[in-house]
Amino acid sequence: MSDSRIDELCINTIRFLAVDAIQKANSGHPGAPLGATPMTYVLWDRFLKHNPEDPEWPDRDRFILSCGHASAMLYALLHLTGYDLSLDDIKQFRQWGSRTPGHPEYGIVPGLEVTTGPLGQGFANGVGMAIAERRLAASYNRPGHEIVNHYTYAIVSDGDLEEGISSEAASMAGNLRLGKLIYLYDDNGISIEGKTSITFTEDIARRFQSCGWQVIGPVNGFDIDAVESALREAQADSERPSLIICRTVIGYGSPNKAGKAAAHGEPLGEDEVQLTRKQLGWDNEEAFAVPPEALKHLRKARDRGRKQQDEWQQKLEAYRQAYPDAACQLEEDLSGELPEGWDSDLDGLFREETKPIATRSASGLVMNALAPRVRSLVGGSADLAPSTKTMLSEGGDYSAADYRARNLHFGIREHAMGAIASGMARHGGVIPYTATFLIFYDYMRPPVRLAAMMGLRVIYIFTHDSVGVGEDGPTHQPIEQLVGLRSVPNLVTIRPADATETAEAWKVALKRDNGPTALVLSRQNLPVLDRGKLAPASGVQRGGYILQDAEKPEVIIIGTGSEVAIALEAGELLQERGIRARIVSLPSWELFDAQPVEYRNTVLPESVKARISIEAGSPLGWERYVGDNGVIIGIPHFGSSAPGKVLYEKLGLTAQRVADEAANLLKGGEK
Amino acid sequence: MSDSRIDELCINTIRFLAVDAIQKANSGHPGAPLGATPMTYVLWDRFLKHNPEDPEWPDRDRFILSCGHASAMLYALLHLTGYDLSLDDIKQFRQWGSRTPGHPEYGIVPGLEVTTGPLGQGFANGVGMAIAERRLAASYNRPGHEIVNHYTYAIVSDGDLEEGISSEAASMAGNLRLGKLIYLYDDNGISIEGKTSITFTEDIARRFQSCGWQVIGPVNGFDIDAVESALREAQADSERPSLIICRTVIGYGSPNKAGKAAAHGEPLGEDEVQLTRKQLGWDNEEAFAVPPEALKHLRKARDRGRKQQDEWQQKLEAYRQAYPDAACQLEEDLSGELPEGWDSDLDGLFREETKPIATRSASGLVMNALAPRVRSLVGGSADLAPSTKTMLSEGGDYSAADYRARNLHFGIREHAMGAIASGMARHGGVIPYTATFLIFYDYMRPPVRLAAMMGLRVIYIFTHDSVGVGEDGPTHQPIEQLVGLRSVPNLVTIRPADATETAEAWKVALKRDNGPTALVLSRQNLPVLDRGKLAPASGVQRGGYILQDAEKPEVIIIGTGSEVAIALEAGELLQERGIRARIVSLPSWELFDAQPVEYRNTVLPESVKARISIEAGSPLGWERYVGDNGVIIGIPHFGSSAPGKVLYEKLGLTAQRVADEAANLLKGGEK
Repeated sequence: MSDSRIDELCINTIRFLAVDAIQKANSGHPGAPLGATPMTYVLWDRFLKHNPEDPEWPDRDRFILSCGHASAMLYALLHLTGYDLSLDDIKQFRQWGSRTPGHPEYGIVPGLEVTTGPLGQGFANGVGMAIAERRLAASYNRPGHEIVNHYTYAIVSDGDLEEGISSEAASMAGNLRLGKLIYLYDDNGISIEGKTSITFTEDIARRFQSCGWQVIGPVNGFDIDAVESALREAQADSERPSLIICRTVIGYGSPNKAGKAAAHGEPLGEDEVQLTRKQLGWDNEEAFAVPPEALKHLRKARDRGRKQQDEWQQKLEAYRQAYPDAACQLEEDLSGELPEGWDSDLDGLFREETKPIATRSASGLVMNALAPRVRSLVGGSADLAPSTKTMLSEGGDYSAADYRARNLHFGIREHAMGAIASGMARHGGVIPYTATFLIFYDYMRPPVRLAAMMGLRVIYIFTHDSVGVGEDGPTHQPIEQLVGLRSVPNLVTIRPADATETAEAWKVALKRDNGPTALVLSRQNLPVLDRGKLAPASGVQRGGYILQDAEKPEVIIIGTGSEVAIALEAGELLQERGIRARIVSLPSWELFDAQPVEYRNTVLPESVKARISIEAGSPLGWERYVGDNGVIIGIPHFGSSAPGKVLYEKLGLTAQRVADEAANLLKGGEK
Repeated sequence: MSDSRIDELCINTIRFLAVDAIQKANSGHPGAPLGATPMTYVLWDRFLKHNPEDPEWPDRDRFILSCGHASAMLYALLHLTGYDLSLDDIKQFRQWGSRTPGHPEYGIVPGLEVTTGPLGQGFANGVGMAIAERRLAASYNRPGHEIVNHYTYAIVSDGDLEEGISSEAASMAGNLRLGKLIYLYDDNGISIEGKTSITFTEDIARRFQSCGWQVIGPVNGFDIDAVESALREAQADSERPSLIICRTVIGYGSPNKAGKAAAHGEPLGEDEVQLTRKQLGWDNEEAFAVPPEALKHLRKARDRGRKQQDEWQQKLEAYRQAYPDAACQLEEDLSGELPEGWDSDLDGLFREETKPIATRSASGLVMNALAPRVRSLVGGSADLAPSTKTMLSEGGDYSAADYRARNLHFGIREHAMGAIASGMARHGGVIPYTATFLIFYDYMRPPVRLAAMMGLRVIYIFTHDSVGVGEDGPTHQPIEQLVGLRSVPNLVTIRPADATETAEAWKVALKRDNGPTALVLSRQNLPVLDRGKLAPASGVQRGGYILQDAEKPEVIIIGTGSEVAIALEAGELLQERGIRARIVSLPSWELFDAQPVEYRNTVLPESVKARISIEAGSPLGWERYVGDNGVIIGIPHFGSSAPGKVLYEKLGLTAQRVADEAANLLKGGEK
């Protein structure tokens, strides 16, 4: 069979596996697979360095399907090239418990880099992967030893480019000259409401050029050789990321739906599938047909991959001989394990600290104490590093001139920052952190959610965590953001009460390797709690703990973060009134809720129904801890512009109020 | 005094009012006022059509300070041009209860168009205003009667342009050829982490040209005449929005901080203020000095404004004579009042409906029933209109070719969509709605928050509201989004149970003129509740109501949206078991919580402690309604890819489970 015949056969095999899977599920997106398969095939068949037998091989090329709705195409490719994904798996497309969910899900689909679907996310994930790759390459490669050297590819769609996150990420990729980043743009001119021209008339080439990208094309996305040449051209430019504009037709081959929005998001229908088979010259009338020649050709990926990985292993061996320490470090970084004694410099970091210190500043000290041992800690802020205190003092500034540096400058681009961090985490070899004000969590909710879904170790530092922000006013004062973080499944949120709890929070975050952690930190100074008199800060590990107790407590006061000091003060006021109060620090709901019920009952015994919570944020959800008889002190409205201390007074976040409420509760008063 | 002398004097007056206010508050951002005042002064002094004595005059030009941190400059301008903002107000900058908060807040500062601060939002708000202006102009202007005709101006900063939302909004503005949109870009090359070149090296001119904008400059932002010429050039192009790139220096005039990040976000310090006075030739050593010549010159804005508005009033009078009906309609639209009988076509809309219907589809029917009377209802979807069912069938497609049309195509740009809608609402004359899947609320949280803060009537339609989405899987299945909506102060969220509740929800949303409303709608079909047997749907107005009661109920089952039908079914199962259950529909927490305690106690009496809530979303916060003894049935993790009905079974969202839990509760069983 001629080369072009085999190409066509393979392409149609992929297309119809996708189309048939969608048809069988009676749900899915056939348009993109029919249009984007040729370009994706060229990439996988002629360029992609990967080993289906070892999907996590560290020096593989990364491939991202940013338009995740084309999942069926990817599943077909994974099956045909020999990943651990069977034809039966594909037949279970979009069904309960299957390994082929509606959108590609990391952790469920073998060989998948990242979960995609929400548009624009994959685009930015790829930038994070390329950042991580360059950092490892710059840190570990030695003359004659290119031990880290791979590309990051993605298929991106109109929707990806319309979302603002792609502009943010593209700008950063161009600035950083990430030449090993190559994106194929499936330019099909159609989105759900019709022709993209109704709303999307950008000159994409100009736009990407303005951000420092090489733009290639438009090429005919169905012309195998043209796509191949374009990919070679992209690889040849090592200084600029490349966007290859591939003109395609959505739903290509479908006589009645090609080029129409109708091809996008629903099965073609049995009749149309048959017509499409005819039009594309696909003789197999039965569904899920895999011609042996196509399988044989595509399965060569296994041999190629094995060979490529073997060669790399040999290179690694030579590297290990020449640079045993570096090799050891690289492997440790890639393993994701924390090095021996990684947290030993935290011991007693704040023991001598007697002056009040903001938890953001404490966090900065913790990070800098950790950084020398935890080499893989790499991250940055969305243009707020001086305020978030997240600069690693010896880390240098990551740029095209210094890819070894550890401080990233994300610019005022929280959304891309979040998704880039996820890409870095999934690349491996780095433990990424991000930083911004808590209020701007709102700008980066989608990537935080996806990181939680993927179970990635990303550390989000959110400072300026309440009305304590002060004069900047309600636009900058978080109210509902804390409950927002708590509402995300598999995200652990920690709001430490002081410097010592901050150190513990960092330990939790770094040890947590199956999900992201948000550290919620104060702008204002907070007293360093006297651990000689109070319970140790290690209680943070359990999410909540008795900070100060009284014999047979009558009332429990629960605080988090900056309000714990207020709770302690209220305890003193109550003691003066002869009321026995227990003070509970509850920095993390998720960690606390995960404790055995016995422990939780020890901290919050059912017998003590007089409970008060105080937190400078939305009261939503605190009923869980204070119960029917409790009182929630929070802020059920937006904040206000005034000095932080004034706001605490005016909004009733005071020890006096807590004490009064407690006394009132004990008198059986109205809540 | 020469013209150029008076210009300089005015500019310095503005600058030092800002600098002094910041210094007195010991908090604020002096860098932008020092750099951006000249260009802003030119705009206000020579172009801006506004009347300080009537800030809400409908045909005024709109001015947005997208970089809201430059607030002190704006307050100085408002005071000096004669708005109801005194020098004493300015001296209270950033203090509790003042009218000059840290960032510009609509509703607090007189003469302010929109609340700004979170970067990029103001940029997109302006696009919304320009959209509304063109719509009203196209709808109401008649030959010889240009009754609607004004510009929308904004000052935008590096940060605004780095945020992805500005790319989204710029693309849409270019596509729509909003020629009356003119933005001045304060290009000062500095952001908080240092020179913008560390992360922001875009060719801004190219980028905006790629989106169909006219780009003017760079001009010297301190050259009054150059800025004036640029503004004239911008006005001359009626086909394209214009971006004027003004090169400026942050903190201009400050000998030690000009051109440095240090000038951005903290007071200059007393000494540096004095040095700056010297450098800028400002002789007034005392703070808050207003030279009489400067005041006299700037206060001319009042006479100009009065005259401009008078002329417009005369035009309006002539228009009213020539086109009395149109004038009447225009005034009604501008008033924001709903027309007589606006909801009369909703009566009995679903009375004959017996087949199950998705609430998204019901909403589409409601919108189309409302549209003929509620002429000002204008909006659209982020490329999901066929799925969100939000097309107004007679509305046409809003485009440069038809500005009268009512259906906007926002593209896959949820973030800009939200902010554009806010700009439309603040412009007036239109009641905007947006639409997307509930999961993509995450992409538009910042503008929803700001709309709530501003108290704007925007209607957010969020469909595909739960795991009922089905096969698309966890990336598309909302879990924590509903509690997210509920957590935003002053946002009303309604999740109707069926078509009849959907109609009521729309009534609430339209009548609510002091804040936004989110309508949360199902993808899947839901039975239309038999209102002959059940309580009327008007209960929605109170947020929660007894849908079906039993004599002396032993257990209360509370549901929302698609789970109400399950609750009713559970009630039947319980009846068979001889258990008396009350079924409560609770479509809106906010509306219910706002009811008098007596009403709430009627619906959820303290005496019935056996309560079960069922909602296909995060359980967070339901303790408020079920209490210490209740059971919350929800989804405390991410969803899964499978048919929706399968998911409901697998995740335990079934009548059987509700009934079992109820029976168990009554037996005094473990929760």
